[in-house]
Amino acid sequence: MSSKLWEKNISVNSDVETYTVGLDREMDLYLAPYDVLGSMAHITMLESIGLLDKTELDALIAELQNIYEEIQNGKFIIEPDVEDVHSQVELMLTRRLGDIGKKIHSGRSRNDQVLLDLKLFMRSKIEEVAIAVKRLFDALIRQSNRYADVLLPGYTHLQVAMPSSFGLWFGAYAESLSDDLTVLRSAYTVVDRNPLGSAAGYGSSFPLNRAMTTTLLGFSTMAYNVVYAQMGRGKTERIVAQALASVAATVGKLAFDACMFSSQNFGFIKLAPEYTTGSSIMPHKKNPDVFELTRAKANKLQALPYEITLITNNLPSGYFRDLQLIKESFLPAFDMLIDILVMTERMISEIEVNKNILEDSRYDYMFSVEEVNRLAVNGMPFRDAYKKVGLDIESGNFSPNKDICHTHAGSIGNLCNEDIENLFNSILDSFNFSNYHAAFNNLLSR
Amino acid sequence: MSSKLWEKNISVNSDVETYTVGLDREMDLYLAPYDVLGSMAHITMLESIGLLDKTELDALIAELQNIYEEIQNGKFIIEPDVEDVHSQVELMLTRRLGDIGKKIHSGRSRNDQVLLDLKLFMRSKIEEVAIAVKRLFDALIRQSNRYADVLLPGYTHLQVAMPSSFGLWFGAYAESLSDDLTVLRSAYTVVDRNPLGSAAGYGSSFPLNRAMTTTLLGFSTMAYNVVYAQMGRGKTERIVAQALASVAATVGKLAFDACMFSSQNFGFIKLAPEYTTGSSIMPHKKNPDVFELTRAKANKLQALPYEITLITNNLPSGYFRDLQLIKESFLPAFDMLIDILVMTERMISEIEVNKNILEDSRYDYMFSVEEVNRLAVNGMPFRDAYKKVGLDIESGNFSPNKDICHTHAGSIGNLCNEDIENLFNSILDSFNFSNYHAAFNNLLSR
Amino acid sequence: MSSKLWEKNISVNSDVETYTVGLDREMDLYLAPYDVLGSMAHITMLESIGLLDKTELDALIAELQNIYEEIQNGKFIIEPDVEDVHSQVELMLTRRLGDIGKKIHSGRSRNDQVLLDLKLFMRSKIEEVAIAVKRLFDALIRQSNRYADVLLPGYTHLQVAMPSSFGLWFGAYAESLSDDLTVLRSAYTVVDRNPLGSAAGYGSSFPLNRAMTTTLLGFSTMAYNVVYAQMGRGKTERIVAQALASVAATVGKLAFDACMFSSQNFGFIKLAPEYTTGSSIMPHKKNPDVFELTRAKANKLQALPYEITLITNNLPSGYFRDLQLIKESFLPAFDMLIDILVMTERMISEIEVNKNILEDSRYDYMFSVEEVNRLAVNGMPFRDAYKKVGLDIESGNFSPNKDICHTHAGSIGNLCNEDIENLFNSILDSFNFSNYHAAFNNLLSR
Amino acid sequence: MSSKLWEKNISVNSDVETYTVGLDREMDLYLAPYDVLGSMAHITMLESIGLLDKTELDALIAELQNIYEEIQNGKFIIEPDVEDVHSQVELMLTRRLGDIGKKIHSGRSRNDQVLLDLKLFMRSKIEEVAIAVKRLFDALIRQSNRYADVLLPGYTHLQVAMPSSFGLWFGAYAESLSDDLTVLRSAYTVVDRNPLGSAAGYGSSFPLNRAMTTTLLGFSTMAYNVVYAQMGRGKTERIVAQALASVAATVGKLAFDACMFSSQNFGFIKLAPEYTTGSSIMPHKKNPDVFELTRAKANKLQALPYEITLITNNLPSGYFRDLQLIKESFLPAFDMLIDILVMTERMISEIEVNKNILEDSRYDYMFSVEEVNRLAVNGMPFRDAYKKVGLDIESGNFSPNKDICHTHAGSIGNLCNEDIENLFNSILDSFNFSNYHAAFNNLLSR
Repeated sequence: MSSKLWEKNISVNSDVETYTVGLDREMDLYLAPYDVLGSMAHITMLESIGLLDKTELDALIAELQNIYEEIQNGKFIIEPDVEDVHSQVELMLTRRLGDIGKKIHSGRSRNDQVLLDLKLFMRSKIEEVAIAVKRLFDALIRQSNRYADVLLPGYTHLQVAMPSSFGLWFGAYAESLSDDLTVLRSAYTVVDRNPLGSAAGYGSSFPLNRAMTTTLLGFSTMAYNVVYAQMGRGKTERIVAQALASVAATVGKLAFDACMFSSQNFGFIKLAPEYTTGSSIMPHKKNPDVFELTRAKANKLQALPYEITLITNNLPSGYFRDLQLIKESFLPAFDMLIDILVMTERMISEIEVNKNILEDSRYDYMFSVEEVNRLAVNGMPFRDAYKKVGLDIESGNFSPNKDICHTHAGSIGNLCNEDIENLFNSILDSFNFSNYHAAFNNLLSR
Repeated sequence: MSSKLWEKNISVNSDVETYTVGLDREMDLYLAPYDVLGSMAHITMLESIGLLDKTELDALIAELQNIYEEIQNGKFIIEPDVEDVHSQVELMLTRRLGDIGKKIHSGRSRNDQVLLDLKLFMRSKIEEVAIAVKRLFDALIRQSNRYADVLLPGYTHLQVAMPSSFGLWFGAYAESLSDDLTVLRSAYTVVDRNPLGSAAGYGSSFPLNRAMTTTLLGFSTMAYNVVYAQMGRGKTERIVAQALASVAATVGKLAFDACMFSSQNFGFIKLAPEYTTGSSIMPHKKNPDVFELTRAKANKLQALPYEITLITNNLPSGYFRDLQLIKESFLPAFDMLIDILVMTERMISEIEVNKNILEDSRYDYMFSVEEVNRLAVNGMPFRDAYKKVGLDIESGNFSPNKDICHTHAGSIGNLCNEDIENLFNSILDSFNFSNYHAAFNNLLSR
Repeated sequence: MSSKLWEKNISVNSDVETYTVGLDREMDLYLAPYDVLGSMAHITMLESIGLLDKTELDALIAELQNIYEEIQNGKFIIEPDVEDVHSQVELMLTRRLGDIGKKIHSGRSRNDQVLLDLKLFMRSKIEEVAIAVKRLFDALIRQSNRYADVLLPGYTHLQVAMPSSFGLWFGAYAESLSDDLTVLRSAYTVVDRNPLGSAAGYGSSFPLNRAMTTTLLGFSTMAYNVVYAQMGRGKTERIVAQALASVAATVGKLAFDACMFSSQNFGFIKLAPEYTTGSSIMPHKKNPDVFELTRAKANKLQALPYEITLITNNLPSGYFRDLQLIKESFLPAFDMLIDILVMTERMISEIEVNKNILEDSRYDYMFSVEEVNRLAVNGMPFRDAYKKVGLDIESGNFSPNKDICHTHAGSIGNLCNEDIENLFNSILDSFNFSNYHAAFNNLLSR
Repeated sequence: MSSKLWEKNISVNSDVETYTVGLDREMDLYLAPYDVLGSMAHITMLESIGLLDKTELDALIAELQNIYEEIQNGKFIIEPDVEDVHSQVELMLTRRLGDIGKKIHSGRSRNDQVLLDLKLFMRSKIEEVAIAVKRLFDALIRQSNRYADVLLPGYTHLQVAMPSSFGLWFGAYAESLSDDLTVLRSAYTVVDRNPLGSAAGYGSSFPLNRAMTTTLLGFSTMAYNVVYAQMGRGKTERIVAQALASVAATVGKLAFDACMFSSQNFGFIKLAPEYTTGSSIMPHKKNPDVFELTRAKANKLQALPYEITLITNNLPSGYFRDLQLIKESFLPAFDMLIDILVMTERMISEIEVNKNILEDSRYDYMFSVEEVNRLAVNGMPFRDAYKKVGLDIESGNFSPNKDICHTHAGSIGNLCNEDIENLFNSILDSFNFSNYHAAFNNLLSR
């Protein structure tokens, strides 16, 4: 039996099939639970407008719940002869329930079905990302508080500049994640709009109740205009990918610092041995491979929005098969990002910090600004104080006073970590993930 | 007189100067008013912590108001021998007020000064962009309502697929802008945080009151951690550029459609003659150059985040001069985006729509889905109805019924333009631009 | 037994192992035959400088030939506990030959080993790409000659402009491939340089004979400087990826044209049915999915150089683990490109061309330039002729003379396909793939 | 008087004009000399096919030579009311010679005219780039030879790994430039093909002698197929931009190393003071701004191919106005690259090298591989030697023998700089720039 819905009389050459199906069967496994949930909402609505009767609906819902269960238990597969997840689910229903299985497709196209699956998938995966971001954030704040008083040199131009601290360094990356979360929040808003009912991008002559499916699936709002609902394909992925890339950029930068700071030329931190590797020819090496791969994965994730842009750009409105190819790189990107977040959280939590960095005299000059400011506070114009200290340094007469006292908000002595935590948590709370959890629970417990 | 603040005894080679200053003098003109406003807030705060006395403050404020006025009147220049806007303003103050002019730099570095200037600039320019987006949005909604009933073919795979309408087409782009505005809103949140007081990225030993400057400049919150405040350079520009690119992508797609729809092979729309050009060798041509350049500019804007990523990626934390180069492409990008929004609004408003498209028989088959659905509503299983109509088409027995009746939300007969407007306006309102307007008015009317 | 060469006493956490190994085992299968060939050359050289004796060499060569055979027959696997292909080969040798198996690693690091594997892999795969390009080129020339006289409208600005022909259209893409082949040729030159002997990027204290391995492996020259040999990692992939992207861009553009030309609004070509698909809700559709996926894959390939740039950019000199991640996207890219070339060749060969396009009166005006030129040839200044015809068109007095006679080189009547073929073939010949074939045959037939 | 060639009766709105002309007048100044040379060749050919008589030709040639002279002397401007360089030249001819000035446009479109101008411009600019690359190459080789024996640590993973030398470090970048030159050479081949005669991309009914203009302009060959000649617009720029980006990547990496090596944490090199700047608040700083800006400019150049790809991708064949926008970023990119090459050459030539780096005991372990190899040469299996040295290091029993003796090709003791120079020079010679010089001299000395 063949399951290509659109196949009429022409046999499809098997090379062509391999070429067009691509990694779809593999990719569609990411979407399977959402496909089932989407169908539940769709047919509940179909019954409400008289396109299914109550008995049919009940039978279909019960069987969809069974399939959902099978997916959760890892028992669901897309059979070799079946094109995609949508066909597989319909096939299973038809096998078990006969012809009424075919009715779930009324008033729907594969286009809005996959749009919906992708949006439900993204919504869940963004939640997982947000949780992983939260954990890394917490680890960074913990370490910032723990090492608040351990100083390290602050660099500008990679030149030793002014005193900094591990409190500042860890805290900076925590705060960076809060801005990334803001970007992720807006991507979530774009995702959280119901495309179901847009059919192939031009709507349907059935009197679909799109407000009902919006509620049933826990969406904040509808993607109203059906042409726009379809136009959201590719665009939504790009916006989400930009948000993932933003998180990745922060993790990648942290990884760069960590690799550099663990070099013998810095010696600021030591990575736990399980995150380093040796060399096949240099027996003394302890290489920060895990942080390096983290950086590389973060950089790869930053290329994703560009790939999506290249695939989608300069296409006119309306669906194109090109959009399918986005799935190959996009769907696995969430887990790649979560992996680097989890691994970074573990490495940051177990990092060993050097408490005696400033004993090295090469860092003495970084106290020069302090001296300039001291003179300025005591009345010398800033520019004159700056010149005097500069001349002292050149003539070898500068000796640092290492007692630093920074008190203003955000400085070494006043990290504002609580403010940063409040900010982060308020952004996180605003996602309201519980909305969709409740909706899914309702669908699954009918 | 030389104005290089950091210059000591070494004369700077003039080639090197040309190389390093680059387009800075030109770019810094974008930042001039914000530099002055930032200095006003900074010195008001300095006085509050005893680093300036009241008389000095009053004199400086008055003179800064004069300079602000000169900038507004187009009379401000950066002199050839002066390195940047910060030095120019300080020079003018020193010329007019003597040594107290130098005091505005206390407790500040050029690093946090330019960070602040950039954020104030972005905040204002995002407002301009948002207003231009709003105007285009309104034009699209107007045209959607006006041509709600004019049908055109809906395409999938660029194959004639199903009936669509100009109501849907214009409305889709309006709704697309509302998602872009969501992305822009999050970029605004990232921008709207005060970096002043972070100095060179490691804070200051002065007891700066950063909460005070946050309020004086109308920021929503502080960029707390001083290391993060500096880390925001480049990152903020990238996030904003991604948001600009998102708006640009919508405009570019609309431009692509418009160019294609005005080809003789479609003939769906006619552009007003002032937006077309002729050919130097083909006398019959009316080329959609303005839409083509709009598309090209939109695509160029989409390259901007990648340029910023390439410049900033894999740099460790701390300031690098590399960040300066971002300005060259980034600062003019706002006006480029506003230009294409304004031009698109005008072209869309004056577009001529072909009301007789569907008379062409090549579009007949797009009514086949309607027929399938009709059979399905009357009880035939969807898959069977689909097969029957397919066979009718193949055998030449299909004749279209062009009375289409789409009633569900977002469809041809029910565009939901009011919902889309409500959504758009609620996002726009959430920017609260009046907050910073009020703060600026206070600073300027002291 | 564990096979991590560098592992000493610390047990490696299994999550970390999963994270760091990534897809390496899968990716290294691409490299397996080249790893074996590289080892053959390396140990032959080692024997020549006295680091192996003749008996050891003979035993190792025989066993490596066996392993090569196993790889060719699809019997080679990387065992679950083994980190990479290099370790697997060494393990097999040690199992079969005892301690002398370990000796193949003398004077070599995994760094130059993988550099070599990658270069040998790229050299072979570039040959496969070149062959696939040649086949598509030949198909295009064939179709260009076959349909030399079938006219179609030439567009500028997607406006009907001047007469063109299928001869020109097919031929243009053939010639485009010849420029792409030039770019590929230079990438091949960069690849075709022997990195073996650079060890970890700083050479070796062994008196390695690098000229000998250069000859044994059929390289054109050595990557001399050992630091540069290592610096070539990532850089070579980027240069090759740019060349692949250039071929892809041509194929993608052809696919765009083909999709558009098969739309009902053009009707210029018809794709063979096996390359089209239907719709799940629209029974009349014949969608050009195969060309669309071809375009999408071509666009995805164009993103590859950017991904590599992002991963490698702003890393200082010396090896980093980041470079490993490039393999995931880079190694499979060759087959993706070959797939789209092969599929395009088939589709182009089976394409059906509409011979009556110009009967449609919408294309009449494209003969206006001909008229202008006719007047000009007869003495009217060009600008005046242009104006006259323009006025004739506006007043409805223009009637086209469709006898066109273009005779100059490269025009409709004089396609220069033989020149284009000569050009293409001379570039192809310059690759001299037979050089490395001969070297490989020598190694395998010792 | 208006100079818009295609303008008929409709007045062009001035906002639209500003929008569409954009930076064209500024950009076209780059093209002016090439436009004149192209016209000389074109009309010489027109005369040969009877479209001009000899007197007309002579008058036009003489006047074009005058205009060329004016351009060389900086006296050429594009007048405010004139759209582009082509119109300006035609206008000047008409003013000076009357109606025959109009005749230079016969058999030509602005499309092939600008294609030609761009190719002639690129050809000259690639020569300038190649010369600047040669100079930097020579400086690097000089420094490599000069500091052949000064050791510095070689890093892998930014961990101290093995002994390296300034001889290797400078030489590596020299050799890197030779591969970049190979890429540039292929771009030159793509450029060096004559598009003149393709008119608007569909050829001409005039019996143009394209072989003649190919010779007159010193092109290696013709871009045969006229549709392909037009298709080369955008594509050629992308291929050239990729080649420029490849050179830039090498310079950027060198700049990254230089910035890092001049940090206090390395102290390997000292930049000449005129290439460093100070800090406005930190009097001890000597920042490597010039190398940082070099790196940033190199990174910006690497974004250029992506911008061009985004503008041109997914456009069907045929000219679009979009292509014009490429000029804004593309034309100035050559000078930006030349600037960073020149500046880098100067900085490298004046760099101060630290000759006592290895006295620091943190670099002792990098001699461990030497010890492993020593044991291996003396008969211990490599893996066992590796283990022994590893255990010695862990137990503190390792003491380095710093006498290193690397003799193989490309290693510390045998840099192969002469081979690298021969390689580089043979690539450079293959450009044969003298071919086009001779052709231009002929045109200008008629």
